Amino acid sequence: MIPMDDRGLLLGDGLFETVLAKAGELMLWDRHMDRLARGCAALGLPAPAPSTCETQAREALTAGGLADQRAAVRVTWTAGSGGRGLDRPEAPSPRLIVGAVQTPLLSSPVRLATSTVRRNPSSPTSRLKTLAYLDQVMARSQARAAGADEAVMLSTDGRVACAAAANLFWIEGRELFTPSLDCGVLDGTIRGLLIERLGAHEVAADPEVLARAEAVFLTSSLIGVRPASALDSAALADHPLIARARAAVAEAI
Amino acid sequence: MIPMDDRGLLLGDGLFETVLAKAGELMLWDRHMDRLARGCAALGLPAPAPSTCETQAREALTAGGLADQRAAVRVTWTAGSGGRGLDRPEAPSPRLIVGAVQTPLLSSPVRLATSTVRRNPSSPTSRLKTLAYLDQVMARSQARAAGADEAVMLSTDGRVACAAAANLFWIEGRELFTPSLDCGVLDGTIRGLLIERLGAHEVAADPEVLARAEAVFLTSSLIGVRPASALDSAALADHPLIARARAAVAEAI
Repeated sequence: MIPMDDRGLLLGDGLFETVLAKAGELMLWDRHMDRLARGCAALGLPAPAPSTCETQAREALTAGGLADQRAAVRVTWTAGSGGRGLDRPEAPSPRLIVGAVQTPLLSSPVRLATSTVRRNPSSPTSRLKTLAYLDQVMARSQARAAGADEAVMLSTDGRVACAAAANLFWIEGRELFTPSLDCGVLDGTIRGLLIERLGAHEVAADPEVLARAEAVFLTSSLIGVRPASALDSAALADHPLIARARAAVAEAI
Repeated sequence: MIPMDDRGLLLGDGLFETVLAKAGELMLWDRHMDRLARGCAALGLPAPAPSTCETQAREALTAGGLADQRAAVRVTWTAGSGGRGLDRPEAPSPRLIVGAVQTPLLSSPVRLATSTVRRNPSSPTSRLKTLAYLDQVMARSQARAAGADEAVMLSTDGRVACAAAANLFWIEGRELFTPSLDCGVLDGTIRGLLIERLGAHEVAADPEVLARAEAVFLTSSLIGVRPASALDSAALADHPLIARARAAVAEAI
């Protein structure tokens, strides 16, 4: 339970990380803690000690009987209680909340639908995992209503950005492409890993690139690499580079 | 206390209203409950019974010793617990949280600073009081860092939208103007009241209109009408129409 005056609840004032745990091992932990620290710097919050987060993550796994399972650990870091309306207190005392749930490995292809809810590159929150995630909830809900599994979100200026809860890659001419962060894109851990290991191009691209791509796939900590089988009414094919991307992720996690 | 799996906390999935109470009377209550119901429809959530909200609001005022004070009642309506990641459960069970705090009457002029964080008209959340309010927290924080009291937020396409926690009006040629809702503007209760009573024009306008305006003022449930004395480095004057707007609000609350 948390106090009802927590600014995370009242205003979405805080950040989170979703970390994959495999048999008790916290995957890409340092990348997650680095991103959390960068997010705190962007929001003007003190950052948590990674060792404290790790201790609580391990406790959550043990308490949930998940130490030998595939689990999702959520580390939530709110701006804490206090302040007046939008204004934080002089010295915020953030609140750490860590929980874990079992998470299945889902690798079947996903159907994508383009959402009318766009991402706002002017807001640092478009690149961070903040508690203000309602736009993504609404984009996902639109995709479900359209019979799809996940949303494709564009930026307010009409560039391809990312999925509601994943990053987006596409393949053209046997090369990998992904939207650049300044298109309002979440700075995903698996996205970063694939750019480093497979040299994906970070670009600002109109949505037509997805329609003419050889293949499209999603990445996130929990799903790893997952191919897309359709975007709106168009079918999408598989591609050998998707298997290569999956192998690159498997090496790291 | 609320459970740590509440979707309001985890994802900003919910709405709120901030209602002014004067000596136990809940001002513009029906307008607040109407807006909350419209927000629920937009987000796909069941709406709370206004009578339940009212009972809890009165209890919060009494419990806080605020029944004869000027108080801010906050009605928070979250999407409740459950679901998987972004996906809500089939039948969400929203959670109602009502609290009250004393709130001073602040009528002195405010200094405004234009924020780099813009509002996203493609998102229904730009017109609703949702729990995903972090952009407004950041805009306010930028304004404070610039030595101002409140932020002016533009839309992503560069039109004037509103303040971080208030609506914005300006006066030109002895007429009132305010940004139209499709500029990513919160559908404010006092904004609506002034449009009805004084016939303000709802327009899409570039920020230059504020620089050449005869006067600028803010409105919100808690502040009523509050003049602006400066915008960025430019001074702003008072104007008789501001007193007229304040009188129109005073008649209603």
